[in-house]
Amino acid sequence: MKTYLDCIPCFFQQALLAARKATTDESKIREVLDAVAELMPSISLTASPPEIGREVYRVVRKITGVDDPFRETKAENIRTAMALYPQLKELVSGSHDPLLTALRIAIAGNIIDFGADPHFDLSRDLNAILKQDFAIFHYDQFMESIQKAKHILYLGDNAGETVFDRVLIEQLRDHHFTFVVRETPVINDCVLEDALDSGLGEVAEIISSGCDAPGTILSRCSQQFLKRLQASELVISKGQGNYESLSEVRDYPIFFLLKAKCSIIAKNIGVPLGSIILEYNQQSAF
Amino acid sequence: MKTYLDCIPCFFQQALLAARKATTDESKIREVLDAVAELMPSISLTASPPEIGREVYRVVRKITGVDDPFRETKAENIRTAMALYPQLKELVSGSHDPLLTALRIAIAGNIIDFGADPHFDLSRDLNAILKQDFAIFHYDQFMESIQKAKHILYLGDNAGETVFDRVLIEQLRDHHFTFVVRETPVINDCVLEDALDSGLGEVAEIISSGCDAPGTILSRCSQQFLKRLQASELVISKGQGNYESLSEVRDYPIFFLLKAKCSIIAKNIGVPLGSIILEYNQQSAF
Repeated sequence: MKTYLDCIPCFFQQALLAARKATTDESKIREVLDAVAELMPSISLTASPPEIGREVYRVVRKITGVDDPFRETKAENIRTAMALYPQLKELVSGSHDPLLTALRIAIAGNIIDFGADPHFDLSRDLNAILKQDFAIFHYDQFMESIQKAKHILYLGDNAGETVFDRVLIEQLRDHHFTFVVRETPVINDCVLEDALDSGLGEVAEIISSGCDAPGTILSRCSQQFLKRLQASELVISKGQGNYESLSEVRDYPIFFLLKAKCSIIAKNIGVPLGSIILEYNQQSAF
Repeated sequence: MKTYLDCIPCFFQQALLAARKATTDESKIREVLDAVAELMPSISLTASPPEIGREVYRVVRKITGVDDPFRETKAENIRTAMALYPQLKELVSGSHDPLLTALRIAIAGNIIDFGADPHFDLSRDLNAILKQDFAIFHYDQFMESIQKAKHILYLGDNAGETVFDRVLIEQLRDHHFTFVVRETPVINDCVLEDALDSGLGEVAEIISSGCDAPGTILSRCSQQFLKRLQASELVISKGQGNYESLSEVRDYPIFFLLKAKCSIIAKNIGVPLGSIILEYNQQSAF
């Protein structure tokens, strides 16, 4: 997905939020915003938003000197999600279609996103998503793919959401999962430590994509990751950032699992804002 | 009121909205955003937001070549408001406290604001505001001031809102009103033509502030306006832009009449977002 003009004010909003997480020094925060302003004329709108987001967060890190402004927030979100974990497991085991419920729970976890909305309400949205209709729902294809595939590559998104991903992964115990994290901290995206703190080490192999953007930009991923991607029978891509960077990729079989929290992404997918989707990128083959 | 860091992303949002009103040429719109980005490092946060807004809209005008991007929108808003006018008059005449109802109606008109929220819903908000409690309500002081003053200087805000202002002005028939408009088009703010189209010429003398910002910046107003201000017994200041530029002024007796639609302004006033207020700037004298 390309970057839209509407993304530009949003980059400033995100820079402001991240800079405020990093420091209370107003002059430093102003310096961040000025540096992002300086960056803007040189950005290409043909690049995906995570490509620009990567540059914006590099500016935040460089000027504030703080490598991981969301460290505490991420830890807190993981703690909150871990406290919910037993309840999530009960929801799955008590449902008529446990896999579908686990899929819905994985999407519900996707609301933990400070890039898109710092004011989310986890329990309210969890209940809503458990009842919400999917706007795009390639569930038959998903079931068929799951039956064929032994190895699944799971592209993680935010820290905390990872606990919800774990619930889905645990529902597919017969499969070997590789859970992919970002190479370095960026927004509240999941890195190795966050995945381990979410208990994912017990149910999946954890690798880094090699990419330091808030998405999976293939040209910035490591050779090691790309080899795993090429060998993968099935990819589950969580969240907006991964969608933005992979929406035009057709070389690998990818299921996008997300809530469209941003109006521009919703428009790009062709669904109303707030929709939940399970979309297969090889749909035309069916 | 000074400019806050939170205003910076908002300036880009406003530039995008205005540029889109002016042109469908995406490269021109990008050029506007880049020029606003270039402007940002040089702006002083000690200036009020309308001072920066003035610069932003100058950029929009210069690059798009369109002097009044909101011309059609303003005309439509005036038409909508004029169609509501008979209903507004009935609301006033049928109420127990016609002046208070007229004050509430004038505030309700203040939701017509593309700078703060392009997605307003006039009839929904009108009904809500007619019932809403004031967060700040210097009504006794207002009544006392009204009884003493013969001449009232009324600082207009947005086109369309002007029809609602007219309802309030008509409720104070014993007073001489001077209605103040912006010198040139800026956002959807009211200029001379808009005031005339709203029927204000029948109930008030209309003058320009001489200022081309979306507010009343005294250092940018004409000598003619400043003389009128100095001679005024009472000033009614409508809306956020006038508040932002006059909130620290104590030399003239001003009543601020507005709905706090922006969280930063609400915080500056010290009220919850969405509050309606009638605030006297000489309150400490009481």
